[in-house]
Amino acid sequence: MSGPRRLWFGVAAANSLTRARAYSILRPYDNSIGARHWRAFHFAVLSAGLLAVAISSIDDLPDWLDRGMAAVVVLVAVIFLAEYILRLWSIPESARYAGMSEAHARLRWAFSLNGLIGLLAVVPAFGITTGVINADSDIAAIFCLLWVLKLGLYAPAMETLARVISNERATIASVFIIFVIVLVAAATATHLLERTGQPSGFGSVPASLWWAVVTLTTTGYGDVVPHTVGGKMIAALVMVSGIAVLALMTGILATGFAEEERRREYLRVWDQVTKVPMFTALGTVTLSEIVGKLRVRHYPPRIVVVRRDEPGDSMFFITEGEVEVRLPHTSVRLGQGGFFGEMALLTRMPRNATVVTTQPVTLLVLYASDFYEIAAHIPTLVEAVERESHRRQAENEAQLAGAETS
Amino acid sequence: MSGPRRLWFGVAAANSLTRARAYSILRPYDNSIGARHWRAFHFAVLSAGLLAVAISSIDDLPDWLDRGMAAVVVLVAVIFLAEYILRLWSIPESARYAGMSEAHARLRWAFSLNGLIGLLAVVPAFGITTGVINADSDIAAIFCLLWVLKLGLYAPAMETLARVISNERATIASVFIIFVIVLVAAATATHLLERTGQPSGFGSVPASLWWAVVTLTTTGYGDVVPHTVGGKMIAALVMVSGIAVLALMTGILATGFAEEERRREYLRVWDQVTKVPMFTALGTVTLSEIVGKLRVRHYPPRIVVVRRDEPGDSMFFITEGEVEVRLPHTSVRLGQGGFFGEMALLTRMPRNATVVTTQPVTLLVLYASDFYEIAAHIPTLVEAVERESHRRQAENEAQLAGAETS
Amino acid sequence: MSGPRRLWFGVAAANSLTRARAYSILRPYDNSIGARHWRAFHFAVLSAGLLAVAISSIDDLPDWLDRGMAAVVVLVAVIFLAEYILRLWSIPESARYAGMSEAHARLRWAFSLNGLIGLLAVVPAFGITTGVINADSDIAAIFCLLWVLKLGLYAPAMETLARVISNERATIASVFIIFVIVLVAAATATHLLERTGQPSGFGSVPASLWWAVVTLTTTGYGDVVPHTVGGKMIAALVMVSGIAVLALMTGILATGFAEEERRREYLRVWDQVTKVPMFTALGTVTLSEIVGKLRVRHYPPRIVVVRRDEPGDSMFFITEGEVEVRLPHTSVRLGQGGFFGEMALLTRMPRNATVVTTQPVTLLVLYASDFYEIAAHIPTLVEAVERESHRRQAENEAQLAGAETS
Amino acid sequence: MSGPRRLWFGVAAANSLTRARAYSILRPYDNSIGARHWRAFHFAVLSAGLLAVAISSIDDLPDWLDRGMAAVVVLVAVIFLAEYILRLWSIPESARYAGMSEAHARLRWAFSLNGLIGLLAVVPAFGITTGVINADSDIAAIFCLLWVLKLGLYAPAMETLARVISNERATIASVFIIFVIVLVAAATATHLLERTGQPSGFGSVPASLWWAVVTLTTTGYGDVVPHTVGGKMIAALVMVSGIAVLALMTGILATGFAEEERRREYLRVWDQVTKVPMFTALGTVTLSEIVGKLRVRHYPPRIVVVRRDEPGDSMFFITEGEVEVRLPHTSVRLGQGGFFGEMALLTRMPRNATVVTTQPVTLLVLYASDFYEIAAHIPTLVEAVERESHRRQAENEAQLAGAETS
Repeated sequence: MSGPRRLWFGVAAANSLTRARAYSILRPYDNSIGARHWRAFHFAVLSAGLLAVAISSIDDLPDWLDRGMAAVVVLVAVIFLAEYILRLWSIPESARYAGMSEAHARLRWAFSLNGLIGLLAVVPAFGITTGVINADSDIAAIFCLLWVLKLGLYAPAMETLARVISNERATIASVFIIFVIVLVAAATATHLLERTGQPSGFGSVPASLWWAVVTLTTTGYGDVVPHTVGGKMIAALVMVSGIAVLALMTGILATGFAEEERRREYLRVWDQVTKVPMFTALGTVTLSEIVGKLRVRHYPPRIVVVRRDEPGDSMFFITEGEVEVRLPHTSVRLGQGGFFGEMALLTRMPRNATVVTTQPVTLLVLYASDFYEIAAHIPTLVEAVERESHRRQAENEAQLAGAETS
Repeated sequence: MSGPRRLWFGVAAANSLTRARAYSILRPYDNSIGARHWRAFHFAVLSAGLLAVAISSIDDLPDWLDRGMAAVVVLVAVIFLAEYILRLWSIPESARYAGMSEAHARLRWAFSLNGLIGLLAVVPAFGITTGVINADSDIAAIFCLLWVLKLGLYAPAMETLARVISNERATIASVFIIFVIVLVAAATATHLLERTGQPSGFGSVPASLWWAVVTLTTTGYGDVVPHTVGGKMIAALVMVSGIAVLALMTGILATGFAEEERRREYLRVWDQVTKVPMFTALGTVTLSEIVGKLRVRHYPPRIVVVRRDEPGDSMFFITEGEVEVRLPHTSVRLGQGGFFGEMALLTRMPRNATVVTTQPVTLLVLYASDFYEIAAHIPTLVEAVERESHRRQAENEAQLAGAETS
Repeated sequence: MSGPRRLWFGVAAANSLTRARAYSILRPYDNSIGARHWRAFHFAVLSAGLLAVAISSIDDLPDWLDRGMAAVVVLVAVIFLAEYILRLWSIPESARYAGMSEAHARLRWAFSLNGLIGLLAVVPAFGITTGVINADSDIAAIFCLLWVLKLGLYAPAMETLARVISNERATIASVFIIFVIVLVAAATATHLLERTGQPSGFGSVPASLWWAVVTLTTTGYGDVVPHTVGGKMIAALVMVSGIAVLALMTGILATGFAEEERRREYLRVWDQVTKVPMFTALGTVTLSEIVGKLRVRHYPPRIVVVRRDEPGDSMFFITEGEVEVRLPHTSVRLGQGGFFGEMALLTRMPRNATVVTTQPVTLLVLYASDFYEIAAHIPTLVEAVERESHRRQAENEAQLAGAETS
Repeated sequence: MSGPRRLWFGVAAANSLTRARAYSILRPYDNSIGARHWRAFHFAVLSAGLLAVAISSIDDLPDWLDRGMAAVVVLVAVIFLAEYILRLWSIPESARYAGMSEAHARLRWAFSLNGLIGLLAVVPAFGITTGVINADSDIAAIFCLLWVLKLGLYAPAMETLARVISNERATIASVFIIFVIVLVAAATATHLLERTGQPSGFGSVPASLWWAVVTLTTTGYGDVVPHTVGGKMIAALVMVSGIAVLALMTGILATGFAEEERRREYLRVWDQVTKVPMFTALGTVTLSEIVGKLRVRHYPPRIVVVRRDEPGDSMFFITEGEVEVRLPHTSVRLGQGGFFGEMALLTRMPRNATVVTTQPVTLLVLYASDFYEIAAHIPTLVEAVERESHRRQAENEAQLAGAETS
C-alpha cells in the first residue's frame, strides 16, 4: 500500500467516526474509555519523543542511532500533526464556541493556549525533516521543550493545584517576600564580611546572592562557602530560615489543598451519584449530607476491588461498568446502580466474596466510619441496603440449595 | 519649567487631594483602587532601586552604567522622600493617634517602626548624592538593605504569618531546643571522633558546630565531611534528625496556619457580607453559619470569572465593583449586591454564560459543596436565589423573543 | 544430640502446636502475643542478617570475621527456610484459600508475592553455603537485598501508606509531571547556556538532566554547578521550584494521610469496642458517635499508663490484658471490660493512682476534650461511669477502714 | 563578708522561703511568676555555660580568656549544684512521692531521670576545678553535653512532641522501614555499578550506604557522587524518594500534632475557665462546647494586647493578672474574671480602647468566628456579655459627663 493511499485510508477512518466522538475523545478531562486510551497513547508517544530528543543530544553517538532517533522525532511530530488537525476539525463541537461559525471557532481555538502549544509542538520536527533546522542544533532542543508542556495539558489534578496556588496567592507572595528579604539581607551581610577573603565568591552583592539562594533553599552546592566566623553565623541563620520558609510554604499549600480537594471531590460525587437509583430516591437534604461522605474511585478491568477474608472497611456503589462478585460456589455480575461490600459492614465480619472488575469501572466508596454515622442519622438508606442484601442472600441460598438438590 | 517651579506644582497637586484621601491611599492594608495602584507603583520603584544597588556593587562596570545606576538610586530615594513627607503630613488622620495634636501624632509616628524604616530608607541615597557616602562603599549597601525591609510592611499576609508564629511560639521554641540539643551533641561527638584526622574542620566544638548545622539543615556544602566510621554514623543520625525537625516544624506551622487563616477569612467575609442585601435580611444565627462557608476573592478588571460550558462548582455574590454577564445573544451588567453562577448549582449543568469583570471586583464565593449543605439547612436562602434566578431567566427569554420578533 | 535427631525434635514440636495456631502467629497483622513475639524475633534475625552481609562486603576483613559473617548469613537463611516451610504448611488455614484443596492453596500461595519473596530470601544463602554462589560476589549482595523487602511485609502501617498513595495517585502524578516539566525545561535551558563553558557537565541534555535533578531535589552535590549568570538564575528558579514541589507533595500526602488514618482508626476501635460491656449496651446511633472519639493503644507489660499526681487528660477502657491500679494503701487488678482514669476527668484533679500494665494490654483511650463533649450529648454513658466509679470508691474506703481497724 | 558567712546567709535565705514554695518554683511546668523567672534565669545560666565550654575548646586562645571561661564554667556548676540541693530538699513536697518518708522520696528522685541529669550536670565542673579533669580535655566536653539535656527538661511543648511521636510510632516506624529499604537497595545497586570506577566511594556496601544516606536525606555533600549513567539514574530515584519520605513524615507528624495540640489546649482551657465567674455559671453541656473554642494566651507585663483603631477579631477573658484599659479620656483596670474587647465584636467597629498588661497576665481568647457561632447557639452567654458591656459604657459616659461638668 503506497503512502498517499494509506493517508487516504486514515482520513476515511477519521470520517467514519462522527465529529462529536472525536471531540469527546480529545477532550482533556473526559472520563470515557476512548478518551482514557487516547491519553495513554498520547503519553507514550510523548515520552518516546522526549527520550529521542534527549538521546540525540549526546555528542558521540553512533550514526545509526542518531538517524534512528531523528526518525522517531519525525514520527512523533507526524502523530502530533494528526492530533492537531483532528482537534482543529472537531473543535466546533465545543460548547465554549457555541453560536460561532465553524471557521470562527477554529480560529479562536488556534489562537488559544492549547491551540498554540499544539501547533508549536509540530513545527520544529518538520523543520528538522525538511533540513531547515539541524536536528542537533539548539533550536531543535528549544522547540522540543514544547512537547513537555503538552504533558501539563493532560495532568488530571493540574487544575486543582493551579486553583490552590491562585487562592493562596496573597500568602504565597508574603512568604516569597520574606524569602527575598532574607536573601538580600544575607547576601549584603556576607558580601561585607567575606569579600576580602573570597573576592570571587562574595565580591559583589549579586555574587553573594547566588550563595544566599543556594543556602536558603538548603541546596548547598558547596562551590562558595563562607570562611569567617561572622559569615558562618549568618549562613547558619540562613539555613534555619530556609527550613522555616519551607515549613511555612508547606503549611499554606497543605491547608489550601485540603480545602480545594474536598470541594472538587464533592462535585465529582454529585456527578456520579445520579446514576445510582438508591440515592436519587433520597431528598436533597439527605443527599447533600451523604455526598460529602462518598469518594469516587476509577478502576481498570480485571482488578480485585474486594478480597474474600480480608477485613471489610467500606461498601461500594457502581456508577459505571460492571463487576463480578465471586462467591464460594457461584458468581454474580453487578452493573450500574448496583452495590456490594455491605455485608462486611452490617455483620462486622471479613469479606465473604471476592469482587473483580470486568470492565473499566467507576465506584462510589462509602467507608465504614461514615457508613455507621449515616446509619445513625439516615436509617432509611441503611434499611434499603439491608433489604436488598437480605434478598440477595436468600437468592444465593436458594441457588445453592438448588445446586445441591440437582 | 525650572526645578523650584516644578516642585511647587507637586505641592499644589498634593494640596489638591484631601489629606484624608492621601492617608487612605498610603494605609498598608487599604483595599481601595488608589491604594492598590500605589502599592504596585511602590513595589516597582523598590525593585528598580534594589536592582540598581545590586548592579552597582559589581566591580568592573562600564562608567556610564555605574553612573546610570547611581542616578536610579537617587531617583528612588527622591520618591521615598516624597512618600515619607506625605505620610508625615497625613498621619494625623489615623484613628490610632486620635485625640492628639497634629505635631504630637507626627512625632509619635516618626519614632514608630514604620516611621523609622521610612526615614532610614531615604538617608543613605542623599548621603551618596551629596558625596558624604561613597556609592560603592559598604555603608551604602548596608543602608540600602533597609529598602528590602520596606517590602515587609506591604506584604498582605505578613500579619497572619506573624500571628501564627506568635501563637505557636512555645512549640516552635521546643523544636528549636531539640534542634540545639542535636546540634551540640553531634558537634561534640564528631569533634572527639574526627579532630585528629581533620584538625581544620573538627578541631574545636565551634568548628564542629558549623559542620553540624550544615548537616542538620540538610544543606550539605561538603566543605567539611566526616571520614571515620563513627563520624559518618553520627552524621547519618543528624541528617535523619534534620528531616524530623523539618517535619515537626512543618506540622506545627501547618496546624497553626490553618486555624489562623480560618479566623481571618471569617472576619474578611463579615466585612463584605453586609454589602449584599440578600444576606443582611437573614438573622444573626443563620448568617454566622453562612459566613463560615463564604470566601472572599479580589479580581482585577477584564478577568474571566466564569466561562461558558465549563462545569460550575460555585456561585458568586458581588460586594464591590461590576461584572458583565455574557449570554449567547445578550449581555447584562451586575453591580454590588448582585449574584451570578447560581444556575449551574441549581440545574447541575455547565455554565450557561461567561462572566467578565469590568472593574476591580470583590466577590464572595460559595462553593457547591457548601451551597448544597446550606440548601439543606437554610432553605430560605436558596429559595430567594431561585426566585431571583427565575425572574432573570424569564427576562432573558422575553428579551430574546423581542430580539427575534424585531 | 546428632543433627538429624535434632531436626526430628523440631518437627515434632511443630506438630505439637496446631496448624491453626501456627497460621495465626505467622499472619502479618495478627495482634496476639505469640504473633507479636514472632515479629520481634523475625526483625532481630533480619537485622543480624543484613548487618552480616554489609560487614562481609568490606574488602580487607580479617579471615575469622569473614567466616563468622558467612556463618551468620547461613543461620539466618536456615531460620527463613524454617519460616517458609511453616508458612507453606499452615497456609490452607487461610480463609482466602477456603474451598481449595491443601495442595492447591499451597501452590497459589507459593506463587503469590509473599510466597515468592519468602522463597527468594532463602535461595541465595544456600547457594553460598553449597559454594554455588561466592559469598563475596555481587549475586549474593543482590539476593540478600530481598531480605530487606521482607521488612516491608511486616511494617504495621505500610498498608495505610500504600492506600494513601493509591487514593492520591492522580494528584501525585500531576506533581510529578510538574517535576518533569521543570526538570526538562531547566536541563535544556542550562545546556544551551553552559555547554560552551562546561562541556563535561552540560554538554548534552541528559548530562544537564543530572544537574537539574540534583538541584530540583535540593540535594546539591556541587559536582556540576552553573557558571554563567543566566545559568545561575535558572538554577535559583529550579531550587525555588524544588521547595514548591516538596511543599505540594507534603500537602497532598498530609491531607490524604489524615483522612485514611481516621478511617482505619475507626475500624480498629469498632473491633475493640465490642469487648467492653459498657459500650455494647449502647444503641448503634450512640455507639457510632463514641467510636469516632476513641483511640486504640497497645502497651507491653510493666509500663506505667497513668502516674499518680500527674494531670489527668484521659480515661481508659481495657479490651485486652490486665492492669494493676496502685492506690496509696492498696492495689487492685482490672481486666478486660474494666476502665480507669475516670476520676481525674470527673473531679478535674490530678491522678489519684498509678496504673501499670501486668500483661500486654490493649486500651481504648477517651481524651478529656471528647469525654466532656460526650458527657454533654450522651449523659447515660457518663452516668454509668460515675455509678461504677462511686461503687469503687466506696469499696476502697471500706477496705481502707477495714485495714485500719484490723 | 567572708566565704563561709556568705554561705550561711544563703542557707538562711533558703530556710526563709517555705519548702512548698521552693518546690513549686522549681516544678518544670509551673505557671506562677516565680517559676517563670526561675526558668528564664536558668536558661540564661545554661546558655552562658554552653558558650563558655564552646569558646574554651578553641585552640589558640589568649590565656586570660581561657581562664575567664573556666571561671564561668565553675560558676555555672555552682549554680547548678545549688539548684540540685534545693530540688533534693524540696522534692518530698511532690504528690508523686506522697506517703513515702522524706529520705525515701529523695532517694527515688535522685535515681529518676531528672535527678541523674541534675547530678551529672554538676560533677564535671567540679572535676575541672579540683584538677581531676583537665578543662580542655574531651571528658569535660562530654560531660558538659549533659547541660544541653537540661534544656530539654524545661521546654514547654516537649511533652506534646513526645506524645505525638509515641502515638504515631507505628506509622513512623513504617516510614523508617521504607527509608531503610530504599537505603539498602540503593547502596547495593550503586555498589555494583560504581565500585570498579570508584573503589574508595562505592567499594563496599557500608561505604555505599554513606553515599545513600547523604543522598536520600537530600543533604548532598558531594564527597561521593556516582559517575556511571546507571548510578546517576539510581541516585535520581533516591533523591525523589527522599522528597517522598520527607513528605510522608511531615504528613504523619502534622496530623498527629494537630490532634494532640487540640487535646492539650482543651485541658489548659478547662484549668483556666473555672476562674471566670461568667463561665462557671453555665451548665456542663454549654461549657464543654465553649471550652473547645477558647485559647489560652500568656502575656508578660507592659504588652499591648489590643490597640485602639485596629480591627477587632477577638474578645478576652482575664483568668490571671491585671490589665489597664486605656480609653480616650480615662483608664480602667480589670482583674481576674473580667473581660474586654467585646465591643468590637458586638458593633463590628474598630477597637475603641488600647489594653495594656500591668502584670504577667493569662487570658482566654475567643475569636470572632467562634463568638458569632456561640452567639447563635448559646444566646445567654452573649446576653450576659452585652449586659455587662452596656453597664460599663453607661459608667464611662457618666464619668465623662462628670469630668466635663467639673
